[in-house]
Amino acid sequence: MTTLNIPMPREQLERIVRQVVRTQFAERLTAGEPQLAAAYASNLVVNISARHLHISQEDLETLFGPGEELRVYRWLYQPGEFAAEQRVTIIGPRQRAIENVRILGPVRERTQVEISLTDAIALGIDAPVRPSGKVEGTPGVLVLGPEGILKMKDGVIRAERHVHMSPGDAQEYGFEQGQYVRLRVMSDCTATFDRILCRVDPRFLLEVHLDTDEGNACNLVNATGAELIA
Amino acid sequence: MTTLNIPMPREQLERIVRQVVRTQFAERLTAGEPQLAAAYASNLVVNISARHLHISQEDLETLFGPGEELRVYRWLYQPGEFAAEQRVTIIGPRQRAIENVRILGPVRERTQVEISLTDAIALGIDAPVRPSGKVEGTPGVLVLGPEGILKMKDGVIRAERHVHMSPGDAQEYGFEQGQYVRLRVMSDCTATFDRILCRVDPRFLLEVHLDTDEGNACNLVNATGAELIA
Repeated sequence: MTTLNIPMPREQLERIVRQVVRTQFAERLTAGEPQLAAAYASNLVVNISARHLHISQEDLETLFGPGEELRVYRWLYQPGEFAAEQRVTIIGPRQRAIENVRILGPVRERTQVEISLTDAIALGIDAPVRPSGKVEGTPGVLVLGPEGILKMKDGVIRAERHVHMSPGDAQEYGFEQGQYVRLRVMSDCTATFDRILCRVDPRFLLEVHLDTDEGNACNLVNATGAELIA
Repeated sequence: MTTLNIPMPREQLERIVRQVVRTQFAERLTAGEPQLAAAYASNLVVNISARHLHISQEDLETLFGPGEELRVYRWLYQPGEFAAEQRVTIIGPRQRAIENVRILGPVRERTQVEISLTDAIALGIDAPVRPSGKVEGTPGVLVLGPEGILKMKDGVIRAERHVHMSPGDAQEYGFEQGQYVRLRVMSDCTATFDRILCRVDPRFLLEVHLDTDEGNACNLVNATGAELIA
């Protein structure tokens, strides 16, 4: 008897297995269809990404002390990604604060804060819409941790709406890496969001990230359906 | 020399005059067009309707004392409508409060609180999407004024997205009273909102009302354009 040594939690592994099974099932379902993109009965997940920050190891230690490591609070849908136990306070130029902003792990090369437009207005900053990592020319905020203060010069963005997808998902939809598509969410206040960036990577599960403004504008939590369209 | 005795402020009158001029101009522009609905270069205004309440005279006096009258803080776009100086605190079932909720005038037959989904989540209530006035079966909140407390049994809604339009506007678009249309807002995060209820009345100026979630989800304040579509 052999045991697979896979460095990820069981629930994440199970999700991936389900994903593979459903994708193959979908392929079988749509094998005879000429319009794959429309007919693809995908395992689409849409999640609200509340305000959070990604952090570098150096900045983490500035805020929480030398040798600090991110601890898993909850695993996220994307393999290896997690909400950390550590939280911080962010403060804008008008001394307005937002408390309990959660750090997402693992640590990254560069610290980045992702907020909604409502948050940006509350903080008094003009955070632009950017894909993750494109932080040149963006504003900064003050970040408070239990052991220190971090003065970010830039890195505060409204994350560009995006969909994580595997190359297989992309092929089923007929979408490409970097393409912009649309997401339609059906609810008591149905809405269609343009400019959903396709991010294709073999490690990704099929998942759209909206921010809290977008999620609440379409009542995502009580939605009856969602679809990606070109 | 005669003076017109019109019971409305000068800026409101000016807006109406401009509206008439632009509408006639638009009619001239589109006179030769077979597709009026698409070609109509309308004087479309889209505004964010922040959380507020409408109030009955009786409830106003409960909160502010006998003989209280609403005082104009700022005139709104629709003729005769105004944001009042009076503000209240609303409290949900989990003792969470939202302060400084503004009353809109004039007084109405029935008190009604209009909030966003974000507000509803913050208060801990399940406020349904309803057109104004349809409050049967909706939740209530506690309302605090400087002179009293009002226990609303119902009347808290997420206002159904709607467009105010004159019969002339409706005709230009080819829309009817009670019809649902869509609003597309072009910005750095373009979005299309379904189920915009057409409310047609000769007193109305052409104006869409979104709530703060919707307005922020499409960055309405920095939008480059907006259009109503069937």
